[in-house]
Order: sequence, then structure tokens, then C-alpha cells
Amino acid sequence: MWDNPWAPLVASAITVVLILVLAFVIRNLAHRVITRVVTRAATGGSITSRFRKGAVTDGIDALLHERRKQRAETMGSVLKHVASIVILGTAVLTVLERLTIPIAPLLTSVGILGVAIGFGAQELVKDFIAGMFMLLEDQYGVGDVIDAGAAIGTVEAVTLRVTRLRDTDGRVWYVRNGTITRIGNESQGWSRSYMDVPVAYDSDIVSVKVLLEHVAEEMWADSELRESRIVEQPQVFGVEQLSDSSLVFRISAKTVPGTQAEVSRELRLRVKQALDSAGIPMVAGA
Amino acid sequence: MWDNPWAPLVASAITVVLILVLAFVIRNLAHRVITRVVTRAATGGSITSRFRKGAVTDGIDALLHERRKQRAETMGSVLKHVASIVILGTAVLTVLERLTIPIAPLLTSVGILGVAIGFGAQELVKDFIAGMFMLLEDQYGVGDVIDAGAAIGTVEAVTLRVTRLRDTDGRVWYVRNGTITRIGNESQGWSRSYMDVPVAYDSDIVSVKVLLEHVAEEMWADSELRESRIVEQPQVFGVEQLSDSSLVFRISAKTVPGTQAEVSRELRLRVKQALDSAGIPMVAGA
Amino acid sequence: MWDNPWAPLVASAITVVLILVLAFVIRNLAHRVITRVVTRAATGGSITSRFRKGAVTDGIDALLHERRKQRAETMGSVLKHVASIVILGTAVLTVLERLTIPIAPLLTSVGILGVAIGFGAQELVKDFIAGMFMLLEDQYGVGDVIDAGAAIGTVEAVTLRVTRLRDTDGRVWYVRNGTITRIGNESQGWSRSYMDVPVAYDSDIVSVKVLLEHVAEEMWADSELRESRIVEQPQVFGVEQLSDSSLVFRISAKTVPGTQAEVSRELRLRVKQALDSAGIPMVAGA
Amino acid sequence: MWDNPWAPLVASAITVVLILVLAFVIRNLAHRVITRVVTRAATGGSITSRFRKGAVTDGIDALLHERRKQRAETMGSVLKHVASIVILGTAVLTVLERLTIPIAPLLTSVGILGVAIGFGAQELVKDFIAGMFMLLEDQYGVGDVIDAGAAIGTVEAVTLRVTRLRDTDGRVWYVRNGTITRIGNESQGWSRSYMDVPVAYDSDIVSVKVLLEHVAEEMWADSELRESRIVEQPQVFGVEQLSDSSLVFRISAKTVPGTQAEVSRELRLRVKQALDSAGIPMVAGA
Amino acid sequence: MWDNPWAPLVASAITVVLILVLAFVIRNLAHRVITRVVTRAATGGSITSRFRKGAVTDGIDALLHERRKQRAETMGSVLKHVASIVILGTAVLTVLERLTIPIAPLLTSVGILGVAIGFGAQELVKDFIAGMFMLLEDQYGVGDVIDAGAAIGTVEAVTLRVTRLRDTDGRVWYVRNGTITRIGNESQGWSRSYMDVPVAYDSDIVSVKVLLEHVAEEMWADSELRESRIVEQPQVFGVEQLSDSSLVFRISAKTVPGTQAEVSRELRLRVKQALDSAGIPMVAGA
Amino acid sequence: MWDNPWAPLVASAITVVLILVLAFVIRNLAHRVITRVVTRAATGGSITSRFRKGAVTDGIDALLHERRKQRAETMGSVLKHVASIVILGTAVLTVLERLTIPIAPLLTSVGILGVAIGFGAQELVKDFIAGMFMLLEDQYGVGDVIDAGAAIGTVEAVTLRVTRLRDTDGRVWYVRNGTITRIGNESQGWSRSYMDVPVAYDSDIVSVKVLLEHVAEEMWADSELRESRIVEQPQVFGVEQLSDSSLVFRISAKTVPGTQAEVSRELRLRVKQALDSAGIPMVAGA
Amino acid sequence: MWDNPWAPLVASAITVVLILVLAFVIRNLAHRVITRVVTRAATGGSITSRFRKGAVTDGIDALLHERRKQRAETMGSVLKHVASIVILGTAVLTVLERLTIPIAPLLTSVGILGVAIGFGAQELVKDFIAGMFMLLEDQYGVGDVIDAGAAIGTVEAVTLRVTRLRDTDGRVWYVRNGTITRIGNESQGWSRSYMDVPVAYDSDIVSVKVLLEHVAEEMWADSELRESRIVEQPQVFGVEQLSDSSLVFRISAKTVPGTQAEVSRELRLRVKQALDSAGIPMVAGA
Repeated sequence: MWDNPWAPLVASAITVVLILVLAFVIRNLAHRVITRVVTRAATGGSITSRFRKGAVTDGIDALLHERRKQRAETMGSVLKHVASIVILGTAVLTVLERLTIPIAPLLTSVGILGVAIGFGAQELVKDFIAGMFMLLEDQYGVGDVIDAGAAIGTVEAVTLRVTRLRDTDGRVWYVRNGTITRIGNESQGWSRSYMDVPVAYDSDIVSVKVLLEHVAEEMWADSELRESRIVEQPQVFGVEQLSDSSLVFRISAKTVPGTQAEVSRELRLRVKQALDSAGIPMVAGA
Repeated sequence: MWDNPWAPLVASAITVVLILVLAFVIRNLAHRVITRVVTRAATGGSITSRFRKGAVTDGIDALLHERRKQRAETMGSVLKHVASIVILGTAVLTVLERLTIPIAPLLTSVGILGVAIGFGAQELVKDFIAGMFMLLEDQYGVGDVIDAGAAIGTVEAVTLRVTRLRDTDGRVWYVRNGTITRIGNESQGWSRSYMDVPVAYDSDIVSVKVLLEHVAEEMWADSELRESRIVEQPQVFGVEQLSDSSLVFRISAKTVPGTQAEVSRELRLRVKQALDSAGIPMVAGA
Repeated sequence: MWDNPWAPLVASAITVVLILVLAFVIRNLAHRVITRVVTRAATGGSITSRFRKGAVTDGIDALLHERRKQRAETMGSVLKHVASIVILGTAVLTVLERLTIPIAPLLTSVGILGVAIGFGAQELVKDFIAGMFMLLEDQYGVGDVIDAGAAIGTVEAVTLRVTRLRDTDGRVWYVRNGTITRIGNESQGWSRSYMDVPVAYDSDIVSVKVLLEHVAEEMWADSELRESRIVEQPQVFGVEQLSDSSLVFRISAKTVPGTQAEVSRELRLRVKQALDSAGIPMVAGA
Repeated sequence: MWDNPWAPLVASAITVVLILVLAFVIRNLAHRVITRVVTRAATGGSITSRFRKGAVTDGIDALLHERRKQRAETMGSVLKHVASIVILGTAVLTVLERLTIPIAPLLTSVGILGVAIGFGAQELVKDFIAGMFMLLEDQYGVGDVIDAGAAIGTVEAVTLRVTRLRDTDGRVWYVRNGTITRIGNESQGWSRSYMDVPVAYDSDIVSVKVLLEHVAEEMWADSELRESRIVEQPQVFGVEQLSDSSLVFRISAKTVPGTQAEVSRELRLRVKQALDSAGIPMVAGA
Repeated sequence: MWDNPWAPLVASAITVVLILVLAFVIRNLAHRVITRVVTRAATGGSITSRFRKGAVTDGIDALLHERRKQRAETMGSVLKHVASIVILGTAVLTVLERLTIPIAPLLTSVGILGVAIGFGAQELVKDFIAGMFMLLEDQYGVGDVIDAGAAIGTVEAVTLRVTRLRDTDGRVWYVRNGTITRIGNESQGWSRSYMDVPVAYDSDIVSVKVLLEHVAEEMWADSELRESRIVEQPQVFGVEQLSDSSLVFRISAKTVPGTQAEVSRELRLRVKQALDSAGIPMVAGA
Repeated sequence: MWDNPWAPLVASAITVVLILVLAFVIRNLAHRVITRVVTRAATGGSITSRFRKGAVTDGIDALLHERRKQRAETMGSVLKHVASIVILGTAVLTVLERLTIPIAPLLTSVGILGVAIGFGAQELVKDFIAGMFMLLEDQYGVGDVIDAGAAIGTVEAVTLRVTRLRDTDGRVWYVRNGTITRIGNESQGWSRSYMDVPVAYDSDIVSVKVLLEHVAEEMWADSELRESRIVEQPQVFGVEQLSDSSLVFRISAKTVPGTQAEVSRELRLRVKQALDSAGIPMVAGA
Repeated sequence: MWDNPWAPLVASAITVVLILVLAFVIRNLAHRVITRVVTRAATGGSITSRFRKGAVTDGIDALLHERRKQRAETMGSVLKHVASIVILGTAVLTVLERLTIPIAPLLTSVGILGVAIGFGAQELVKDFIAGMFMLLEDQYGVGDVIDAGAAIGTVEAVTLRVTRLRDTDGRVWYVRNGTITRIGNESQGWSRSYMDVPVAYDSDIVSVKVLLEHVAEEMWADSELRESRIVEQPQVFGVEQLSDSSLVFRISAKTVPGTQAEVSRELRLRVKQALDSAGIPMVAGA
């Protein structure tokens, strides 16, 4: 095709340069697309976002915004790495092929090693995929109290591979995301605080119930509790258990997440005082 | 075939354009087919639809209609994504091949990465397939109380990958659909409420049974309970257990789903009052 | 071969039409074969059919016939779908090849996706295969009380993928067929009802045994029980357990499936009355 | 090679017919070989046959012969199906190839489906292989009482995929053969019946032992027990347990399989009578 | 190459015969090699052989020799089957290829079936490999009492796939070798027999210890025990447990395998007699 | 191309040398890149580094620096081995190909063995990948007290495959990194020390609380505790449990990691002394 | 190339001989390299060697040297087998190819069988890899007391596939190395011996502590204990548990591995004597 003996070499060089330039262009394009898609996914349609908004006050909107931004960055960075590796890897192989350098030996040694590692890396990929969806669905964030199966505690950090929790004893737990089959989040919406009150079998059911309902009303009337802890007037349920020696009543209150232990203590204090002043002793429950 | 030196280029361009146009036409066609099939599948032949209709009143037909529509949309969107990816991917590869651009290097790098990710993504696909069939079979919907193995609670959201529940303590659970091997739905048809009544070994069996049957009749006669809670006259079973110290009778009532706890409380109250007025004490059961 | 320049096109068109016609003919043929085979398999040689016939009365032959027909239809429909997909898929690929349209790109993108989905769909296929064999072997049908491991209850629906049960609390269970490793069917043939009778260590063994045998004879003589519940005279076993304080006798009756709880209650009632009239108290068993 | 223009067609037809005839011949040959091999395997060298012969009487030789024949038929039928499918499948593909019909598209669609089903069918194949070896090794047969892990009961049917048991409550169990990792067969050779006899710490060890040995001798002397239940004189072991309040003796008897519960009852009866007549009370064991 | 038109046919026939002859020669050679290797492996370097020799008397050398021979035969027969299948399979394929008969269709249908069965047969291969190594390492033999995890009992038969045990209740267990992750063999070298002796908190520690050591010396002096049961003078350990009510001493003896239960009974008898004669009562241990 | 007959040989030799030289150059380059990347990864962006800095004093910065350096070396060495194997393997294969030596047989035998080993080596690769990420994320280091699931103890060594712990009994545990699904690290930040104080049901709640708060203040005032053990004033929680016989108070203190046992002992000592001096006895808690 | 008609045959023969010679040379070379590498690995850089040196006396250096040598031999032999098989297999295939003998049929039948066996042999390879690393890392050796999960006992033999232990009852355990996920070695460095001392709630804390510390000092002063058993003065911890009836003190001693039971007995003896002489009784602990 060409008379110039250098022509093939020049043509090859031009092809190589063209391929590399094209690869970089495509890579940058891919990065931009990923940034846009991830940002939209992370800030927009999470399945919990609407729910959260209703439950939390406006003051923590900034926090949520910050979490969304971090989420977008975390996920974007992984996708960008994957895209770069695929595009540049393809470019290098194409260049080698254009220069008629045999790539079979390279593919062979990489392939054998790749398969060996591929099997072992399954769990790693599982962890990353699980982490990515957890982030996307906003199942939990830093500061939430969660039950991750292997450990229960306050989330201290969320990465794509592991979640770091601190339990109430101060122990720090690193849980791989892929090993989490279900998450229980105690910090979304509301929590519930219970108290079972066992009284003697021959107690007057009606008067005990009235007494407990009085306690419930007083707690709801307490402005301090109402502002920061209880989200609903406590309810008194009737005879929950019945044995030959006792009747068990239950009093229950919906609380702000994280304050249920405090509300329970308050509940015990007030119920005991009410029982004492009415002269009704508690008995060993069933 | 052509004398014009530009002819091959023009022919190539035309081929490319034709392929892309064809791909978009096929993709739109596939989307339409998916919409139609999914809508029919989701609204028509679910294995529970006939059953549900009998158990619920006409008033919630609208709700069911809404659930069906959402189901059709949720499933359709995934299938459309899959179809788009297959059709456009095929089109791109065909174009590259027509332009005699080597696609082996691209396939190689995508392939190696694909296998690595494929293994790790198994669980993701499992989750989606499980979710799709759960939706199709209408095993549960938002508002049902279900036992998903990992957690028990009220369904708050159903997506193809996870189901979100809230348990009675207010904890929010995210359960991956693929990890659910069996679902127990407490909100379909009816529930049952039990009470075991242990009386002394030397009690008169017949008179106790008559007493309990009287309680059962009164509950069935109570118009309030009958309207909103009990769906059948409570039954009294004979001696369920027999030990050296006690005879255990059982009284059981079919209730509207979700009201069994309330009915049990009512049952305990009434049985205790009846035993008290008859002077029969409960004893420690076997 | 042809002088007519349109000849190749015409030949191609004819080939395509021939292939498609042939495919439809083969598909219809396959459907017929499937219908015949499945009908024979489902109605004929189930491993339980002979057994069932002996245990149930002729009145429910119609029910069994109905179950067989449903079974044949359920299984046939899946096999027909599979056959249609294979035959039409082959036809489409053959047509593309005859038209010298490259199918490699299509196969590549379908293949990559196929492998990814294939791994995840394993469990789905397992469910279907398990369901097919359960149906073929008639392990259980609608109305049977079964123990499926994950749940125990009355079968409400059997599909190839899931079995729907309702337990005694009214909870509806969806159990994937592939997760069932063993089925316990309580509604085939007969059930057994037990009662352990602990009496004082120094009781006269012979007279207690005579007393219990008398109870057993009376139950067998009771025409009502005999007609609808008990299928064999109850047996009295000797000293089943022996401790420093008690001798435990056992009385056992074979019953019609589903009536064992009732028979047990009757048994307890009669044994207690017999012991009372003989002045023998029960004691705390070992 | 031929001048006749029809020659190629005729040659093709002949080839096709030859291939099909050959295939049928090979298939029939294979069936015969399978019949012979399986019959020999099933009747000849089972690892338990020698053992069984010694333990059972000559009267049940006919039963064993019947079981062997059934076994040979069960296994042969599966192997023949497999052989037919391989041979006819090969013949069809060879014919298609000879007729220069492209088989790649067919293989492609069958292959994709085959892999998808293959993964899911693993368990099915496992069940069949396990069943085949269980039959070959004669691990159990209809009428044996076995512990299959998932259920314990009397074998009612053995197929290559499942084993059907009936437990003592009358429940029918279908256990997949592949899920059985170990079988415990209670109906081979002999069973053992135990009784622990706790007496007071300050009892005279020698006289109690003599007493129990006397009971053992009497049982062995009882011709009824000896004929149909006990296969060896019961043995009395010395002090099996020693606590601050009791000495525990043990008496044990080898019995005919299936009669151990009866022998235990007889043992308890006789030991109690002997202790009573000697004025030695039983005490709460350690 | 040849002028004779029959030459190619003759050449083909000669080739075929040569290939088959060669295959049989190689197969016989392989069988001989296997016999030699297996015999050496089974009789020579088992990891327990040296250990066994020291622990058992010369009298049972013949038994060990017999076990080794059986082992060599069992393993050799499997290897020979595998070698025959590989060599003859290769020969058949080579013949088909030389005769220019297309083997692709055959490989295709065998391959598809092979993969399907291969997955399911994994466990079978695992069982065989596990059995082969158990035999090679002589982990246990017929007559040994082993703990195989799934069952504990006396080995009645060892094949490459299953091990048959009989437990103390007379139940026969078939345990697949591949499911055994660890074996506990109670019949190698020695066993140990224990007895814990709790005495009152205020007992004199030294005098109790002297008493027990006296019992130990007497047992070691007893020629009958020493000959057939005890292999070392029993040892008395000091205060093993200490609570507010008791001191626990321990006496322990190394015994010949299988006699530990008898030695324990003897130990209990002698210790009780010694305590009785010294007027020291046993108390409830901690 | 060349007239010299030795030319091809010379050319081949030159090519070989060039390939080998190139391979070594690339390998050295790869090693440098790895060293740089790993050093940056290990010292820089670990997810716990910021957190640690805040919790530990400046004095142990040197220790952290040392740990980082070790980490970089450990990880770098594995990556360098992998890179060397890939690059030199590729070079050798390329050389063989250039010399037109057939590499198919070599690849075949290596491949078969490679697949066999590859499956078995999965767990090895898992261990290495898990170890690498644990190091990178600095989940724990030598000297930390961790809960690794299989064992709890002080870390003595961390390698890429196993972690070596020593528990409180002195037992040394080797735990494979791939089997660790979650790590609980007790040595990061702080630990918590608890004490539950049950007092009589009729105690005065307020005065007990004041008493305990006084103990808490005194502990916080104790300079020795404050300097080296307690990091926050101990808190007194109200009525944590309430039964018919007792009220349970809780006192809790945040401590320096590793000193919580000591602080608990101090807490028990001081609370007991305070209760004694106030004449309040502890009672059996609920 | 040659005029001599025998030339090709001669050339082939020469090639074959050259290949075989080359293969043997490479195999010997590989064996030497393996010997050198393994020896260095086994004797040099084991992760526990430094640690061991400090804890054990110089007298057992010879033992360690012996263990290292054995380790090198065990591992080297496996690697040499693998290398021989790869190199000779490659040589054979190369020879067959040079002789233009078709190797496809051989590869086909070996391949099908290879895959089938490969799946089943996974666990075998896992065992070998695990064993190799255990040896390399010197996790335990003959004579160590280890907890291997499946069994606890003294190591009697270590091979690449199984570890043989003997537990305290004399049972010999064969544990497959691949099933061991964590090893607990009780024979490295030191062990700990504990004793909990519960005294009455109203005991004087200080005087009891002084008493126990006196016991600790005396033990440390006892030259016999110090020389061969205790490695550190025993420590007395304060109030470990506090209930309404008791205070629990703890006394703990670091001991030479294997002597902790003896030291515990000594500890109990001395503490009891001290308490007795001081007139302080032990009480039932919490």
C-alpha cells in the first residue's frame, strides 16, 4: 500500500497513539457518567428517604445531605476504578495485538492465576456488592444503633467492605458486609419501651388497670418526657398472662429511638410508686 | 462491487445506522411485550388471589388493585433494564464487528472481570429472583405481619432485593429476599387465639366444661367482638393435659388477623371472672 | 446454480419459511407427546397410589382423580414452555445463520448474562425439580396435614415452586419446595394417640393393667368412636417406666388421621374416670 | 464418484438408515449387558448378604430373593433409560451432521438450558446415586425399622429418589436419599434391652447382684421368651454409677430385633417383683 | 502411496487391530503396576503401623497381616477399574477417529450427561477418596470400637464407600466415608477408667488420699486384673474440686482397650468397700 | 530475509535475550510500583487511623508508625511474589513460543493439575485476601485483645494467613483469617465496667441512688484511678429491673481498654463498703 | 531436507530421546531446588520460632532441630511428586505429539474422568494445603496438647493429610487437617491455673485477701514448685463476684505448660488448709 519502507512502522505508531488517546477519552467519559448516575442514585430514590424525612426533624436535613454526598463518593470511586481497569486493559491488549505481539502467553499466565484468585475473591466481591446496596438503600448510617447479627452496637464507620460498630461494653466490631443477611436498625422512627406488672391473682382487675392508666396519663402530661422522649401516650394492656398466683398487666410506650432504656427506668419508678401508694405489692410473675 | 472508493465506508456507515435503528426498534418492542406480560401476570393468576378475595371485604379491593399495579411496575422495570442491556450490547458488538474492529481484547478483559464479579453476584441474582416470585405470587404486601425467619414484624416496604419490616420494639429490619426460605404471613384469612385453663385434679370435668362453654357463647353473643374480632364461636376442648395435680382445659377462638392478642386478653378476663364467680381456683399447670 | 439474480434471496426466504414451519410442527408434536407422557405418569404409577387406595374409602376416588388431573396439567405446562423455548430458540438461531447474519455477538451478550443469572437461578430450578417429583410421587395434596420442616400445617395450595400451608394459629406459610428435604404427612392411613398413666410405686401392677384394658375394650365397643375415629382396639402396654416413686403404664390407639387429638381427650377422660372410681390416684411421673 | 445425479441423496438415505439401525442394535445390546450386570450385582456380592444369612432363619430366604429381584429391576430401569438417551441422542446428532444440517444452533440452545438445569439438578442426581448404592449394598428393605436422621420409622417403600417411612405416630415420611448421610438399621441381627436399677447406698452389693442374676436366669429359662425374643442369657453388670444416695446396677439382654421394648417391659416387671419380695426399694438414681 | 485399491482398508484394519492390542497390553501393564504399588503402600508405610506394633502382642500379627492384604485388594480393584476405563475408552475413541467416524456427536451427548452426573457424583468420589485414605492409613479395622461422629460402635465392615458399625443397642449404622471428618478409635493402645470420689468438706485430706492409694495398690497387685485389664498402677489425684460441702478426689487407671467399663465397675466396688470400712460416707459432689 | 544461514538462529537468540531482559525490567518496575502503592495504602488512609489518633496518647505514635511499616512490608512481599510469577511465567511462555517449541502439552498437564489444586486452594486465597484487608484496615495489631469468634485473647502475631492469639488460660490459638467473619477489638478507645446492685423491694429508691452516686463521685475524685483507668465519671442508672423481691440499680464506668476488670473489682469493693456502712444488705437479684 | 528415506524416523527417535533426557534433567533440577527451598522455609522463618526460643530451655533445641528436619522432608516429598508428575506428563505428551500420534482421544477420556475426580478431590487438596501450612508455621508438633475443634488431646503424629491425637480417655483421634479452622495449642510458653474462693458476704475483705496472698507467697517460696511448675508468683485478685450470700476471690498462677492441673490441686489444698486454720468456711458461690 505504501512505497515508504517506514510506512508500516509509522502507521502502527499512529494506530497505537490513537487507541491510547481514545481509551483515555472513553475513560474520562465513563467517569463523568458514573459520577452523574451515582449522585442521582445516592441522593434521590433511596427506599427509606421518604420515610426518614417524616420521622426526623428538619434540623438534621444537613446531616442527611452530608451522608448522601459521602455515599455518592464512596460508590463512585469503586465504579471508576472498575471502569478504568476495563478500558485501559482493553487498550493495552488492543495495542499488543496491533503490534502483532503474541498475547496468548500473557493471557495464559494471567488466566490461571486469575481463576485461582477469582474463586477465593468471591467473598470479597460479595462484601462489596452487599455494601454498595446497603449504602444505596441507606439501611443505616454512622451513629445508628444496629443489630448486624454478629454484633449489636453503634455504627462508627461504613465502608464498602466492612461496617465498624462499637457495642455497649466498648468493644469495636468489624463486620464484613457480605456476612450480614439482615440488619435491624433501632434508630429509625421510634422504639418501644415495655413493663410487665405482675400482681396477686385475687387483685381487682379494674382498679389495677385504672391505676396504671393514671400513671400513663401522668407520663404523657410530663412536658419534659413528652418533648424529648415519648412520642405517644403510653398504653395499658389488660391481662397479658394469667397463672394460679398472678395476673400480669403490661404498660407500653412509644419513644424516640435511643431513649427507650431511660423511659423504661422512669416507667418502673412511677409504677412502683403508684403500687406502693395504693398498697398493692408485686408478686412473682408466671 | 462499487467503483466509488468511498463506497465501502458509506456501506459500513449505512450498515451501522441500520443495526442501531433495528436495535432500538427491537428494544421498544421488547419493552411493550414485557409491559403486557408482566401486567397480566401480576394482576391475573396469582396463586393467592382467589383465596384473598374470599377472606377480605370488597372495601379493600381498591388496595389490592393498587398493590397489583405497583407489582407490575416493579417487575417490569427490571426486565426492561435486562432487555435493554442485552439488545444494545449485541448491537454495539455487531457494529464493532462490521467495522472489523477486533473485539477479542474487549471481551477478554470484560470476561475476566465478569467471571470474578459473576461469582460474587450470585446472591444478588438470587435475591432478585426470590423477590420477583414473591411479588408474582403475592406472598405478602405492605402492612402484613410476617415471620421472615430472620425477623418478625409488619412489612413496611417490599423491593426486589430486600423486604423492610418493623418489629414490635420499633426496630426496622432489612431482610434480603434470597435468604428467606419460608414466609409465615399472619394477615391472611384468620388467626387463632388460645387459652389453657388448669384446674385442680379433683374438679368436676363436666361442670368446668359447661362453665367454659358458657363463656364462649357469651363472647360470640357480644356484638362488638363479633363484628370486628371473632369470626367463629369459640370452641372448648376437653382435657388437653392430665397430671397428678391438674386438669388442663383449652378454649380457642378464630379471630380477624391482627386482633388475636386483644381477643386473648378478653378471653382471660372473662374466664377468670367466670371461675371466680363459680369459686374454682386455677392451679399450677403441668 | 440459478441465473436469476433474485434466486439466492428467494431460496433464502423459502429456507426461512421452511425452518419456521418445521419448528412449529415439531413444537406441536412435542406438546402432544408431553401431554400424553405426563398424563400417564401422573395418573398411573405414583409410588403411593396403591397404598392410598387401600386406606381410603371409595367415596374419595373422585377427589384423587381430580388431584391427578391437576397434577398432569401443572407439570405439563412447565414442560411445554421448556420445549417451546428450546425449539423456537433453535429455529431463530438457524434462520439467522442461514441469512449469514453473525450470531456470535448475540450469543456473547446473552451468554455472559446467562451465566450470571444461571448461578443465581440454581435454587429456582431446584425448587421446580423438587416440586415436580413431589407431585409425581403424590407425596401430599391440598387438605393434608404435613410437617415440611420449616412449618407444620394444612396444605392450602401446591405449585411447582412453593407449597402453601396454614398452621393451627392461622398463620399462612409459603415454603419453597427445594428447601424441603423431608416431608412428614399426617393424613395418610392412620395416626396414633397415646396416654401415659403414672401410678404409685406400690400399686398392684396386674389390677391397674386390667383396669386400663377395660377402658380400652369399652372404647372399642363404643360404636360412635369406632365408626369415625378408632381403627383398631386400643392396646395397653405394661410398665413403660419405673422410678422410685411411680410406675408408668401406656395406653395407645390407632385412629383415623386428623382425629388423634380428639381420641386422646376421650382417652384422658375415660382413664381418669376409671382411676377415680377405682380410687387410684395418678402420681408425678418419672 | 457416481454419475447418477440421485446418487448423493440415495447414499445419504442409506447412511441415515444404517446409523439408525446400528443405534437400535447397540441400544438393545446395552440393555442386555445392563440386565446381566445389574442382576449379578444385586443378587451376588452385597456387603451385607453374608452377614444377613447367618442372623436370619432359612424361612425368610424367599423374601430376600424377592428383594434382590426387585432391586435388580429398579436399578436396571434407570441405567437403561440413561443408555437409551445417550445412544439415540448420538444417532440423531450423527444423522443431522451427515445430512449437513447445522447442529450448532440446536446445541447452543440446548446447552444454555442444559447448564441452567444441570446446576439445579445436582441434588436429583445425588439422590439417585445415593439410592442406587443403598439398594446395591442392601442397607435396608421394606419392613425394616430405620433411623434416617430426618425421621425414624418402618420402611414402607424404597425408590431410587426417596425412601418412605412411617413413624410410630402414624406419620408418613418421604426422605430424599441424597440427604441421608448415615442409616441406622434396627432390624439386622439383634437389639439390646437395658434396665438400670438404683438401690440405696447402704445396700449389700453382693446380695442385690445375686437377686438380679436370679431374675436373669429365670428369664433365660422361660421357654416362651427364649423362643421368640431373647437370643442370649441376660447379663447383670456391677455398680454402673455410685452417688451419695444410690448404687445403680444394670441388667441387659440381647433380643430379636423389634422385640426390645417388650423385653424391657418384662424385665421391669420381673425386677420389681424380685425387689418387692426381697424388701429392697428402688431409690432416686444419680 | 499404494496402488492396490484395497490397501487403505487393509491399512485401516491393521491400525485398528494394532491400537486394540496395544491398549490391552498397556492395560495389563497398568494392572501389574497398580498391584505392586498398592501392595507396598498397604503393607509398608502406614502411619500407624509402627505404633500398633508396640502396643499389641505378637499373637495378633497374623490378623494385621490379613487386614493389610484385604486393604491392598480393596484399593487395587478400584484403581484397576479406573485404569481399564481410561485406557479402553481412549482406544475406542482413537479407533473411531482412525476410521474417520465423527466422534463429536458422541462426545456431545456423553459430555452433557457427564457434566450433569459429574456434579451429582462429587459426593460419591469424595466417599471413595476418603475411604481409600482411611484404608491406607489404617485408621481402623473390623472389630475396632470407633466414634465416627454420626454413630459410635463396633466396626463390622469397611468398604471404600461406607463403613458399617453396630452400636451397643444392636443398631447397625451405615456411615458414608466422605461424611466422616474425624475418627475416634477406642481400640488402639490403651483406654482410661476414671472415678470421682466426693467426701465431706471437713474430711482429713491426707487420710482419704492414703485410703485411695491403698485401693490403687491392691488393684495393681491383683494378678487377674493386671494380666488382662490394667496396664499401669492406678493413680490417685488430689483435690480435683472444692466446694462448700465436698472435696472431690479422683482415681484413674490405664486399661487394655475395651475393658475400661469393667475396670470402672471394679474400681467403684473397691472404693466403696474401702470407704465403708473406714466409715467415710460419700457426699453429693459439687 | 537473510542470506546468512545462521541468521535465524541468531535472530531467535536475540529475541529470547530481549524478552528476558524486558521481563526483568518490567518486574523491577512492578516491584517499585508495588512498594510505593503499598506504603501509601498502609500508612495513609486506613479507616481507623483518625479514630485511633484521638484515643491514644502521643507516646504510642512510634508504635503505630512501626506497625504501619511492618504492614507495608508484609503486604508488599506477597504482591511482589505474584507479580514476579506472572511476569516471568509470561516471559518463559513467550520464549518457548518464539523458539516454536510446542507449549500445548505443558499447558495441558499444568492446567489439569492447576484446576485440581485451584479448587482446593480457594480457602488459602480467601485467607490471604482476608488477611490483606485486615492489615490494610488496621482492624487489630499485636498486643490488642480481640474476639475472633473461634477464640478470644491477646494478639501475638498477625500474618496474611493466620492470626495467633493467646487466651487467658495461656492457650495459643492459630485462627485462619478467612474463617473470621467479624472481629471484636477490646483495645480501641475505651471499655465499660458494670455493676448491678440488687437491694430489697421496699428500699428507699432515692437514698440508694444518692449513696451510689456518692461512690461514683469518690471514684472519679480518686486521682490514681482517674489517671490510669477511668476516662469518665461513673454513672448511676435508676431501677434497671424490678421484681417482687428486689430493685436492681446499675453503676457503670468508662475505662481505659484492658483495665475494666480491675475497675469492676474496685467498684464492687467500694459499693459493698458503702452499703455496709449504710446498713443496706444486697438481696438475690431477679 | 534429507535424501535418506530413514532420515525422518531417525530424526524422530533422536527428538524423542532428547525430550526424555531433557525431562529427567529438569526433574532432577526441580527436586534439588525444592529440597533447598523447603529446607530453608522449614528451618528458618517460621512465625513461631523466635517466640518458642524464648520460652523453652536450650535443652530441647535438638528436639526442635529434629522437628524442622522432619518437616522439611514431609513437605519436600509431596512437592517432588507433583513436580515429577507435571514434568514427565508434559514429556510424554510432547513425545506423542512429535510422533504425530493423536492425543485428543486420550485427553478426552482423561479429562472427563479428571473433572469428575477433581471435584471430589477438592477436600483432599484442602487437607494437604492446610497440612503444609501448619507444618511450615510450626503450629504444633508431636507431644503438644492441642484443641483441634473435633478433638482435644496429645499429638501423636502429624502428616500432610491428617493429625493423630490421643485424648485423656485413651481414644485415638484422626482429624483431617482441612477441617481444622483453628488450633489451640496448650504447650507453648505458659498455662494458667485458677481457683475461685467464695467466702461469706460479711467476711472481712482485707483479712481474707491477706490470707490468700500469704498462700501465694508460700507457693512461690516453695523451691520444688518454682523449679518445675510455677513461672511467676501467684496473684490474688480482689472481689471477682458479689452476691447476697458470698464474696468470691480469685487466686491465679502462671505455670509451665502441662502442669496446670497439678498446680491447681496444690492451690486447692493450700487454700483449704489456710482457710481451715483461720476458721473461715467456704460458702456456695454465686
